[in-house]
Amino acid sequence: MSIRNALVTGCDFGLGLELVKVLSHDENVQTIFAGCFNPEKATELKKLAQENSKVKPIKLQLDDDESIQKAAELVESQVSDEGLDLLINNAGINEDDGWLKGQPNRDLYLKHFSVNTIGPVVLTNALLPSLRTAAKLNNKAVVLNISSDRGSIKLTLTWQSESRPSMSYGQSKAALNHFTRTLAYYETTNGITSISVHPGWIQTPMGGPNAELNASESAEKIIKLASKVTIKDTGRYVNRDGNDMDF
Amino acid sequence: MSIRNALVTGCDFGLGLELVKVLSHDENVQTIFAGCFNPEKATELKKLAQENSKVKPIKLQLDDDESIQKAAELVESQVSDEGLDLLINNAGINEDDGWLKGQPNRDLYLKHFSVNTIGPVVLTNALLPSLRTAAKLNNKAVVLNISSDRGSIKLTLTWQSESRPSMSYGQSKAALNHFTRTLAYYETTNGITSISVHPGWIQTPMGGPNAELNASESAEKIIKLASKVTIKDTGRYVNRDGNDMDF
Repeated sequence: MSIRNALVTGCDFGLGLELVKVLSHDENVQTIFAGCFNPEKATELKKLAQENSKVKPIKLQLDDDESIQKAAELVESQVSDEGLDLLINNAGINEDDGWLKGQPNRDLYLKHFSVNTIGPVVLTNALLPSLRTAAKLNNKAVVLNISSDRGSIKLTLTWQSESRPSMSYGQSKAALNHFTRTLAYYETTNGITSISVHPGWIQTPMGGPNAELNASESAEKIIKLASKVTIKDTGRYVNRDGNDMDF
Repeated sequence: MSIRNALVTGCDFGLGLELVKVLSHDENVQTIFAGCFNPEKATELKKLAQENSKVKPIKLQLDDDESIQKAAELVESQVSDEGLDLLINNAGINEDDGWLKGQPNRDLYLKHFSVNTIGPVVLTNALLPSLRTAAKLNNKAVVLNISSDRGSIKLTLTWQSESRPSMSYGQSKAALNHFTRTLAYYETTNGITSISVHPGWIQTPMGGPNAELNASESAEKIIKLASKVTIKDTGRYVNRDGNDMDF
């Protein structure tokens, strides 16, 4: 399938920005809506948008329903009867929620769920009409949720360490995986493929400089995956190479 | 192991109340702290407390850190150097979050996470000193989180239906399962056994009158399970009969 119109969230920097770069090199792609928390400060993305008219930065704050609604309306009006082929829910936060210090911070826990889990639910819901339109026209539309191995409940017993202090981050990604499969259940008949992808531990502001993987390599693989998956893959939780992960 | 001191949350009615009843019939049990959202209105529990001095209703609102802190201080002061043998995180809500109607309600999503996931994290954290004391003295202490089959991400593709509209309930229980295993990771060396239990679909105000199971039968099995599990079971997600569930 060719991706014509895509929306990626969290493109201020890191993996989101790299995903936009990869998509911008694809000649079939017409428009990439690049959701940003703060488009003014996203210097590299702004430069990219100046060089390549496919790239459209839009303000999109995942913990704010009004921001989501506005962005969705803009996208819908621009893609119009072509629909939206690909939505990548990439935006996320990973902050120290105080668990390891014996001071779980409820507000920070809630912020993780609001941005990492509920934001994707609300945004995807707002874009369902455009996704369904693309699926009808193009025989495929993809919602790709950027998850994490930290969201694997099964793996939780093995990967903990003093250096990875946020429990709520992993919880929010487990809850995101739950959404991936709920969406798969309800939208299979409408042709929408819903998957969760663990991008690897990558060199981004979130992953840090010691991470094992280059962000652009991970982005290449994720876009390749988005192009390859079919409705038969819906509900899967995979790593960037397409191999199944344990929930 | 004999349970001497236990705390159960969500005892206003339903499964929590039944768990208190079962514990109150055990002659080894000395004190059952019965956490309630509203002790004044918990008529059946109040009657039980009048008939049996082991049963101590306490006000405990899982979305309110101050309420949790107060309850934990009361419990700690009363169990003193005996510690707390059993904590059952049972309190939970399951409301219509609007997903199926195409109107996901962020506030209700957040409320599910606050009560069903974060409340147990904060409460368990506050009671860790008493649980560790019991584990040292008695060679065992148990944190038993009441989960649900709706929290199984694996099962999500099979159990959806129009009559079970809350996505956030299942998400909050998946996130609770994540907590069960994080706790297991960090507290095994302190002798605390942490498990998630799916109680079955039971006849309670939450489960409704058409549910397949009697709440008191489920409560009997859950208390039996709490007595039987050892540290080797820590991190498991099981049904009321002790059989493994898929995450």
